This record gives sequence, structure tokens and C-alpha cells, in this order.
Amino acid sequence: MKRIVYLMATISLLTSCNDVPKQTPLTMTDEIVLTAPDTQSGLTVNEALALRQSCRDYSSEELSLEEVSEVLWAASGINRADGKQTAPSALALYPIQVYAFFAEGAYRYEPAAHTLVKVADGDYRQATAMQDFAYTAPLNLVYMANYAKYTGRGADIPHERRWFLCGQDAAGYAENVNIYCAGHGLKSITRGSAKPDQLLEILHLDSTQYEFVLAQTIGK
Amino acid sequence: MKRIVYLMATISLLTSCNDVPKQTPLTMTDEIVLTAPDTQSGLTVNEALALRQSCRDYSSEELSLEEVSEVLWAASGINRADGKQTAPSALALYPIQVYAFFAEGAYRYEPAAHTLVKVADGDYRQATAMQDFAYTAPLNLVYMANYAKYTGRGADIPHERRWFLCGQDAAGYAENVNIYCAGHGLKSITRGSAKPDQLLEILHLDSTQYEFVLAQTIGK
Repeated sequence: MKRIVYLMATISLLTSCNDVPKQTPLTMTDEIVLTAPDTQSGLTVNEALALRQSCRDYSSEELSLEEVSEVLWAASGINRADGKQTAPSALALYPIQVYAFFAEGAYRYEPAAHTLVKVADGDYRQATAMQDFAYTAPLNLVYMANYAKYTGRGADIPHERRWFLCGQDAAGYAENVNIYCAGHGLKSITRGSAKPDQLLEILHLDSTQYEFVLAQTIGK
Repeated sequence: MKRIVYLMATISLLTSCNDVPKQTPLTMTDEIVLTAPDTQSGLTVNEALALRQSCRDYSSEELSLEEVSEVLWAASGINRADGKQTAPSALALYPIQVYAFFAEGAYRYEPAAHTLVKVADGDYRQATAMQDFAYTAPLNLVYMANYAKYTGRGADIPHERRWFLCGQDAAGYAENVNIYCAGHGLKSITRGSAKPDQLLEILHLDSTQYEFVLAQTIGK
């Protein structure tokens, strides 16, 4: 019996790092330095695939700094020395720019620095969606195509095809986030609708260069 | 010391179910009854995200029945009692039909029955790609849009928008497969190019109803 108790305690100790992730409150500074991803944690891939579902019911409970950091890393984070990312991009051009909308402001994700840089102060979550539940959820991501990334190797690709490819890139980013959320007890949904003109204005983006392609809500 | 050896042996025993998955050879019958997914197995979600990468170098080693079954389940499998799937679909219309191309033939995946149904005998892998490595890899998936699924709720959506939405659905399916592969020691790549006219002919699909949107190579 003693041996079993000892064994269970040791197993518990060995696994406790994954079971109790750090939960640092998010502080909405102009530049948020995100935490490095814990490259071990989460449910297994098959557990997450079994749990993946689209959720339209969110509490106002905030996400922690670690959760926000790993959501952004799952979407568009760098996972290799050559700068390539967790999700693939057609022609490896990475034209998708990820923006994070919180109650306190809108931020641009910078994969290389793994930071969030404030673009707009205030609550613009309503611009990211056409559905009420998103307006009060703690985090909405917006995936914007930056067509300037097609200069050079993708210069011959017509706009309609670029739009299609950017949509596919963004959907892969968003699905990484869905699987991340399913594997960490968070809720999420990929959403196709938003208020694109408002988004361009809020984010100070030129409509000849940028286009809205996808949005996503994340919460608890 | 004895206690440590005992502990390690017990931990090994406790985790062995996930470490040594079954590897049944795939038999290429007209209808392949796929195995139910092991909803526990695989690396963790964060481990898989850290490992995810696009691979262009495949051996000819076959995938097992269990691996093929879980790849299809990750792409487009049903994970809930209401028939919804592991990956999301815009408007929940599920217009993406997944086809699996092996050296022995091309098969249609049937999510409800979790079976592969043979559509064409023979090696048509070259039609799924424009890149040599795919022609000899053990498995290529092709994601075809079936616009008949837009009858009713999606009837007003113009073709260009349907194409875009189907592209996004397929990219989510493919990213689930990428994460599955990263979490199970398999290689994969999402690919945008194929030979669409050949695919329609091989799969006996009407070009007014079906359109190629995405492909993917999976192997070892």
C-alpha cells in the first residue's frame, strides 16, 4: 500500500507541471511581451480532435497572459529556427497579419518578437463580428491579408487567387487555435463575418493593401 | 534504487497503451471499414504545434489501417452525436468531400459510416499534385468542393464566395491532419496545386457541381 501511495504521489509530481499552468493576469500595456509557449502542455492531439467544437456562449472571464500568449503562438507563432510558423502558408509568403481585440484595445501580433503591439485604445470588439456573443467575449482575433507580401515571388498571382490563398492560410491559423483551445479547456469559434470597413479604419490599414479574410472568438 | 526501478517500470506500463499503437496492414478492398479513432493517443497539442512543419521528403513505407483511419477522422470525421465534425465548416454546410489516393486506387471518405469507398482502381497519385514527391508518397488527400451542399440555406451565395468558403473549410480539415501527423510521428504537407481536370474525370465528378480546392500529402 505504501508503495502505491508513493507511486501515485510521484506520478502526480511528475505530471503537475502540465496540470497547473501559470495564470498571470494580462496587463494591457502598449507592448505586451508574451510568454514563451510551454511546448509540453495540453491534452493529447486525439483528445483535442475529439473535443473540437464551435462555441457561441462565452463568459466575460479574462484569459491569462499565458493563455493569450499560446493562442497567438498557435495561430501564427514561430516554431523553428528558420522563422517558419506553427501553421503553413501558401508559397511560404505568410501574408496573414493577426490582430487581437480585447475590451481594452486592439493589438497587432508580431511573430518574430512574440509581442502584441497596441494599435487602438478602446473596445472595438463589435467591429470583429456580426454576432452578439463576440462583442463581450474576452478575445477576438482578426486575420487580415497583407497583399504586400506577394511582391516578388507572388507578383503574378491575380487578386482573386490571392484572396483564396489568404483565406486558406487564415483558416489553418484559426484551426490551430481551435485545436489549442480544445486541448486547454478554452472555447473558440472560427467566424467568416465582421465589419471589414470599420476594421481597416480602426487598424489604420490601407484598403488597397489589406483585406479582411477571417475572424475568431476565444474565451471561457 | 529498487523503488525507482519499480516506479519507472510502472510508469512505462501505465503509458504503454499510447506508445505502441496498433499497426494493422491496410487491405485495399472496395470498401475499407476504418477503425474507430483512439481518442486518447498522440503527443500533446503543444508538442504537436511545436513540431508542425511541411515535409517534401517521403519514404514509400505504407501507412497502417489505424493511421489512415485517424488521418481521415482528423480531416473530416464525426466527433459528436449531432454529426458535426472534427473541423468546422462555414454555415455548417460541410461541402468538402475528401478523397484518398493510394498506389492501389482512389477512395471517397464517408464520414457517417467512417469508411473509404473505392472510386477508381489504379495509381492516380500524379493527378493530385504538381510536385514529384507526392506521386510516390503512400497517401494523398484531395479536398473537393461539392456545391450541391449550398442548395437551400446557402443558395444566395455567389460562386466566388462559395469557392472562398470551401477553400477555408478544406484548409481547416488539412490543418487538423497536419497537427494529427505532427502528434503521431507522421509527415504531411498541405498543397494548393493538382491537376483538377484529371481529378474530376478519375473521380467521375460533374464539373458544374464539384471543384478542386486543396490537396495534401501524408506519409513517413
